[in-house]
Amino acid sequence: MQLLEEKILREGKLLEGNILKVDSFLNHQIDVPFMQKAGEEFKRLFATKNINKILTIEASGIGVAAVVATYFNVPVLYAKKNAGSNMDKDVYATRVYSFTHRKINTVIVSKHLLTAEDRVLIIDDFLANGAAIRGLIDLVRQAGAKVEGIGTIIEKGFQGGGDRLRFDGYQVESLAIVEKMDAATQTIEFRH
Amino acid sequence: MQLLEEKILREGKLLEGNILKVDSFLNHQIDVPFMQKAGEEFKRLFATKNINKILTIEASGIGVAAVVATYFNVPVLYAKKNAGSNMDKDVYATRVYSFTHRKINTVIVSKHLLTAEDRVLIIDDFLANGAAIRGLIDLVRQAGAKVEGIGTIIEKGFQGGGDRLRFDGYQVESLAIVEKMDAATQTIEFRH
Repeated sequence: MQLLEEKILREGKLLEGNILKVDSFLNHQIDVPFMQKAGEEFKRLFATKNINKILTIEASGIGVAAVVATYFNVPVLYAKKNAGSNMDKDVYATRVYSFTHRKINTVIVSKHLLTAEDRVLIIDDFLANGAAIRGLIDLVRQAGAKVEGIGTIIEKGFQGGGDRLRFDGYQVESLAIVEKMDAATQTIEFRH
Repeated sequence: MQLLEEKILREGKLLEGNILKVDSFLNHQIDVPFMQKAGEEFKRLFATKNINKILTIEASGIGVAAVVATYFNVPVLYAKKNAGSNMDKDVYATRVYSFTHRKINTVIVSKHLLTAEDRVLIIDDFLANGAAIRGLIDLVRQAGAKVEGIGTIIEKGFQGGGDRLRFDGYQVESLAIVEKMDAATQTIEFRH
């Protein structure tokens, strides 16, 4: 998506440790008008799929998924990291390693909200090693539901998580794939 | 909002400890088509305000705010509870007590994303004691920005947070205000 690549080059900052900081439009502030364009694009890319639910993970996936869902006319379910006092005890749970926070989170979804009838589009802001996506796939599998596709805004292609998911047979669509990035020179190359 | 009151009566569950569980459409799964109707309603309620940014707090506010923002054509900024390794050090911070998780969270926004030019609509899923909203107001104040209004989906009127904000002069619009609820009898009364 040309518009996104330009946005990354214009607004993104590269930090040491393979961090692409895009907090002005993706994971602190959300550029909602841009995300509507992303939603249209995902709708086009997954047009042949019969999707009845979007699944994401808190926190930075939620805003993206909610806007994308307006183009599919379906609810968004988000896996929770911190179960509050009003959470069900009856949940599917899986463990996800967060590279950003350097810890393992147990993430959960309530069983009554993810069932064997669900045809799920997984949406997240970033795809790097694929740990979060793998966790969501595991939750879908536990529920006996079906993963119809995986959509992410930015994929760090050089970390291989996206290609491993494609190798496993999933339709993975990332609106921009960063092939190479270098914090020292602040340069980014995209896969085309 | 009649549609919301019906939805609460149909899908909500009352738990001990003044908990109204609405995880099927508001704070675990988000009923996005419904949230679009909520967005239209907020647009109508704040029609006279000149809003250029929506501010909310992670995690359950984000989905609501993102869909509402599609009706205002503005970005959503969400205050973060857990600063990751890629967060700015240059932030406004405030402390918010979470009744759900029974702990104090320090929440932050990056200074470069909230500035004195911003005219802010605060959006959240719930308004009870008003602790989260007060925290967001404090962040706006620190930035020298202006709160144009406060919109929430469900207000627990009997906890008084909304009325204290109205007393302080804020335009607070809640799409449903629960005046009384009783877990023993599973009954809810709304303010009209």
